[in-house]
Amino acid sequence: MKQPEPVGSGKELSPAPDITPLLQLLGCVHPLSPGVIAYLRKHVTACTARKRKLLLKEGTLCNHIYFLVKGAVRGFRREGQKDITTWIVVENDLVTSIFSLDDRAPSIENIQALENCELLALTYAQLDELYDLYPEFNIIVRKLLQKYYADAERRAFIARLTKAENKYRHFLLLHQPLANRIPLKYTASYLGMTLETLSRVRKKFTSRV
Amino acid sequence: MKQPEPVGSGKELSPAPDITPLLQLLGCVHPLSPGVIAYLRKHVTACTARKRKLLLKEGTLCNHIYFLVKGAVRGFRREGQKDITTWIVVENDLVTSIFSLDDRAPSIENIQALENCELLALTYAQLDELYDLYPEFNIIVRKLLQKYYADAERRAFIARLTKAENKYRHFLLLHQPLANRIPLKYTASYLGMTLETLSRVRKKFTSRV
Repeated sequence: MKQPEPVGSGKELSPAPDITPLLQLLGCVHPLSPGVIAYLRKHVTACTARKRKLLLKEGTLCNHIYFLVKGAVRGFRREGQKDITTWIVVENDLVTSIFSLDDRAPSIENIQALENCELLALTYAQLDELYDLYPEFNIIVRKLLQKYYADAERRAFIARLTKAENKYRHFLLLHQPLANRIPLKYTASYLGMTLETLSRVRKKFTSRV
Repeated sequence: MKQPEPVGSGKELSPAPDITPLLQLLGCVHPLSPGVIAYLRKHVTACTARKRKLLLKEGTLCNHIYFLVKGAVRGFRREGQKDITTWIVVENDLVTSIFSLDDRAPSIENIQALENCELLALTYAQLDELYDLYPEFNIIVRKLLQKYYADAERRAFIARLTKAENKYRHFLLLHQPLANRIPLKYTASYLGMTLETLSRVRKKFTSRV
C-alpha cells in the first residue's frame, strides 16, 4: 500500500516545536498527566504545508493526526468529476481522516491545505502507544471524540437541509469564522449549493445586518 | 428543564434483563473487565417502546443511552413544517442523542421507534459513574466513538451526494439491511429525495439484479 508523503512540502520548523496550543486543546477536556505531556513534547513534530498541497490523498493510508497551528484545511471526496467539500477546519483544531486512521485502510477522502499551514504531527503508532502507556489518554480522546462526533452530526444536518437560507444560517451558527475567510467555491461545495446561490444568500444575510 | 419520560410506553420486561447482546457489542471492541460486566448487570434496565412512540423529544434533556435489542428507531430534526430523518438504527446497536447527552442541553433532535422496540437502558449518571469507577470503560467508549464518528461522516457524505443513484448506492453499501425493512418515506427523507425519486431509483437497482 502506498504511504502518504510526509506532509507534502513540509519542512521541519524546529527540532523541539512549541506544543502549547495542542496541550491547551487537550487539557481543556481533561487534566493532562505529566507522562502524557512528556510523551507529546518528545514525539510531536512540526511541519508545514503550502496552500493547495494535499496532506492526504485518496487511496493512501492515513498515518498521522495533525494539530493545525496556523491555516485552514478541507476534507473532500469525489463524486464523478466533481469534488465535494465535506469539512473545513481552521487553526487550533485536530485534523485527520477518521476512516483511514482507525481502520488502517486506504483513505476514501483527501485533505488539502486551503492556506499556507503550520502543523504539529503525531503518527498512528505514537497515538497507539499513548493509549497503551497512559490509560488516561483514552479519557481525553473519548471526550474529544464525543465533541467531534456531535460536530459530524451537525455537518450532516446542514447537508440535509433543503432551503439554501437555512443551510447558510446553520453554517454561520457552526462556522462563523469561516464565512469571510474561506474561498466561496469551497463553502458552496460544503453547503451543496452553486456559487451563484451562495452569493445570493450571502447578500440577503448582509443586507439584514 | 423538562425531563424525558421513561421510554414512552415502556414497561419493564424483567427485573434482571439479559444483557448478553450488549456485552457482545462492547466486548467486540475491547475486553470487558469483571467490574464493568458486574456494573452493567446490576444497573442496566429493560424497557419497550411501541411503534411511532418518541424515545426522546426535541427540547427535552436526553438522560439515557439505549441498546436496541429488537426493532428499529430513527433520529429526526425539523426544518419548518417538515421533518428530516438524520439516522436510522436497527437492533444490536446503541441509540442516544449525542448532542444532548454529552452537553447536558435540551435535545435538538427527536428519536422515534419505527417498529415495536425492546431496549436496554443506562442513565447518563450511570454512564458517568462507569467512566469514573472503571477507567478501562473509557477505552471501550473511545473505540466505539471512533466507529460512530466515522459512521456520522459517512452519513454526511451520502447527504452531500448530488445524484439520487449515487445516494442510493451508498445507502445500500452502508445500510443494506434497511432497504426492504424501513418505510420508504423515512428512507427518502434520510436520502434527501422525494418518495417518487426513491421509487424510481429503487426500480433501476432492482432491474439490474
